[in-house]
Amino acid sequence: MSRVRVHNFSVSLDGFGTGDGQNLEAPFGHAGMRLVDWFTQTQAFRQMHGQGSGETGVDNAMALTWGVGIGAEIMGRNKFGPQRGPWEDHEWTGWWGPDPVFHTPVFVLTHHPRPSVEMAGGTTFHFIDATPQEALRQAREAAGGLDVRIGGGPSTVREFLAADLVDYLHVTIVPIVLGRGVRLWDGLEGLEQRFRTESVTTPSGVTHLVLSRA
Amino acid sequence: MSRVRVHNFSVSLDGFGTGDGQNLEAPFGHAGMRLVDWFTQTQAFRQMHGQGSGETGVDNAMALTWGVGIGAEIMGRNKFGPQRGPWEDHEWTGWWGPDPVFHTPVFVLTHHPRPSVEMAGGTTFHFIDATPQEALRQAREAAGGLDVRIGGGPSTVREFLAADLVDYLHVTIVPIVLGRGVRLWDGLEGLEQRFRTESVTTPSGVTHLVLSRA
Repeated sequence: MSRVRVHNFSVSLDGFGTGDGQNLEAPFGHAGMRLVDWFTQTQAFRQMHGQGSGETGVDNAMALTWGVGIGAEIMGRNKFGPQRGPWEDHEWTGWWGPDPVFHTPVFVLTHHPRPSVEMAGGTTFHFIDATPQEALRQAREAAGGLDVRIGGGPSTVREFLAADLVDYLHVTIVPIVLGRGVRLWDGLEGLEQRFRTESVTTPSGVTHLVLSRA
Repeated sequence: MSRVRVHNFSVSLDGFGTGDGQNLEAPFGHAGMRLVDWFTQTQAFRQMHGQGSGETGVDNAMALTWGVGIGAEIMGRNKFGPQRGPWEDHEWTGWWGPDPVFHTPVFVLTHHPRPSVEMAGGTTFHFIDATPQEALRQAREAAGGLDVRIGGGPSTVREFLAADLVDYLHVTIVPIVLGRGVRLWDGLEGLEQRFRTESVTTPSGVTHLVLSRA
């Protein structure tokens, strides 16, 4: 069976996976880019975005595993964009430009489905109103035997963890205190009992935590 | 000026410094001893409690610094004991037996002061109803130029951090999700800006985070 994986998911010391007040200029709200600084400095990220060289240490190694063996992604609507409620139009196609980084089918969970959008480079956004289980069924079918990545945001990752659908969880703890935003860990008491846990701290100051299904 | 230090303060991934439901048999409530397993296995802890040998790696080195140069401790009443409200009697003298591990004056913050208690080995418990600033003034005076340790629990550490009275904070992140209890980080947005930050993960699976006043 293909696995369900979460990668490069940053949280603050107080467990927030994103800040407060997301908008077009601030995908992570008041957190700015502080949650993802470790990631945007890696060669993996910079080459993915056509920005040339970057850091090639442990952070990069962790970041690189993001795409390996992935055949589809599931993301929440708040990762896809800052809009809420019914779509005013269908012009918004994500933060990632005309050739998004995914290069696979991407299932966007929303209570307001809209027509699928085929982007350059193999990314197609599908908009579905579905339970985690049903979304995963569709994503697995689209992934053709490869793994499915749960892309975030925090509410989406939390829902898949609560439903015990995640096999691999890579969380990066960033040593900042955000104070407000959306928490990852709420309602997941005892989560660690379902996983083997490994951690490593890197010179950038973050700690990579890897939970693999036991 | 003597420094104000916090040591060996464990939190779960979701930021809880203690669990829910503290009582005589469960000082950390439903967390059991999971927050402090890394600590109780160290030689530093075991020798302090007359239990012979223990682990002598990085966890032990971190644990050992707890007592160095400390002249007094301040703790919250919930660290001292599970009682709440007015004291029914004065028989309770803490979890630590007749010869407590502190060997210094210890100031217990409580809205219900009671007479000081002199224990064996140099520990004296003083009970004061005071602001963090006033408690620190008294503890500094008692410490005779040495450093003052803020001993916990989470609410007390948080109050001293909020008042910007802490110079050194050693937090140990334990890879468990407690789900409920008392949070350390609440109300401390931007805390990291006042500190230099270092982290190290050890083979026991915990991550030691050290914040030193910048």
